[in-house]
Amino acid sequence: MSQQNSQPSPVEPREAVFVNGVNLDALGATVGAIKADPELGVSRFRAVNRWVDGNHNRTTVTGFYGAKQEIAHRQAFTLVADEPPILAGNDDGANPVEHLLHALASCLTTAMVAHAAVRGIEIEELEAVLEGDLDLNGFLGLNPETPKGYTAIRASYRVKAAEKDLATIRSLASFSPVFNTLTNGVPVDVSVETI
Amino acid sequence: MSQQNSQPSPVEPREAVFVNGVNLDALGATVGAIKADPELGVSRFRAVNRWVDGNHNRTTVTGFYGAKQEIAHRQAFTLVADEPPILAGNDDGANPVEHLLHALASCLTTAMVAHAAVRGIEIEELEAVLEGDLDLNGFLGLNPETPKGYTAIRASYRVKAAEKDLATIRSLASFSPVFNTLTNGVPVDVSVETI
Repeated sequence: MSQQNSQPSPVEPREAVFVNGVNLDALGATVGAIKADPELGVSRFRAVNRWVDGNHNRTTVTGFYGAKQEIAHRQAFTLVADEPPILAGNDDGANPVEHLLHALASCLTTAMVAHAAVRGIEIEELEAVLEGDLDLNGFLGLNPETPKGYTAIRASYRVKAAEKDLATIRSLASFSPVFNTLTNGVPVDVSVETI
Repeated sequence: MSQQNSQPSPVEPREAVFVNGVNLDALGATVGAIKADPELGVSRFRAVNRWVDGNHNRTTVTGFYGAKQEIAHRQAFTLVADEPPILAGNDDGANPVEHLLHALASCLTTAMVAHAAVRGIEIEELEAVLEGDLDLNGFLGLNPETPKGYTAIRASYRVKAAEKDLATIRSLASFSPVFNTLTNGVPVDVSVETI
């Protein structure tokens, strides 16, 4: 049978579907691919840090390994850390434990917004105050009994969404990789070699 | 006895002592104060995060509580997170798990440089590549058995310093608050209320 006179296949470019500003088509494509081949989900994120001077140092993030390939970011990201004067720095950047709070906050926010989008739950506004308790007697080595890390972190979110969705939105925080890394702990191997 | 003809007290403004660019006088003043009153070490770091759109969100860091008072940073720091296109973002910032690697790298670097300075150990150069293993089957909820956070992180440092100091420099990483938070884990309380 000749196709010549048959109706052409409908090629209707449709709008991508967005919920909470998340492109569900893009996310769905990634989810579908990993469902079909779970190995595609195996990822290795990377950061290169260089000491500048004193308590000032700088990290560059350019790409990561995922979907069985190296993937370059569209741009290189430079992240700067320093300490405030009370900790012998020049305050040229947030300090490392503040960057940790940002990593946690941004991950919790992303987990709630993206997983809500997939469930069709609309969020109008979302903001959080994060606080972490740290006793400098630990870091400074003044008391060997004092924990050197954070002993507690609180993330207090305020959301503008339907009242009925609040509990679900809260529960979606549990998907956050940084939340899980911090609450479960992770082995960190530190090696030091000469240049 | 009249002081009039006595030798004036020597007021010789001396240079601050720096090792590795760390102002040891400033650090020493903080250490001395906390030694005398350990309560001065109790700190609470803080970050405010706001969702922008999709997987894009922004954190502001303006100050912290320490030395029994609120201390403002000299400037406000804005930190931006986004996701790459494969995770339905626009790549407008490093993603949360990359920010976590930066937090860890910057903290390990600071711990090694500052504690080396206090011990008179000179460091000429210090750089690190950090890698973290993460299986997206966890975050995406595709396999409930897959951990959602990092399962391992490697921090590979290269240092230019005297060979005899290498082992000591490596050991100083153990003072890092972010390293300790990640390896020991920390309780994170997440609350969500309506605006």
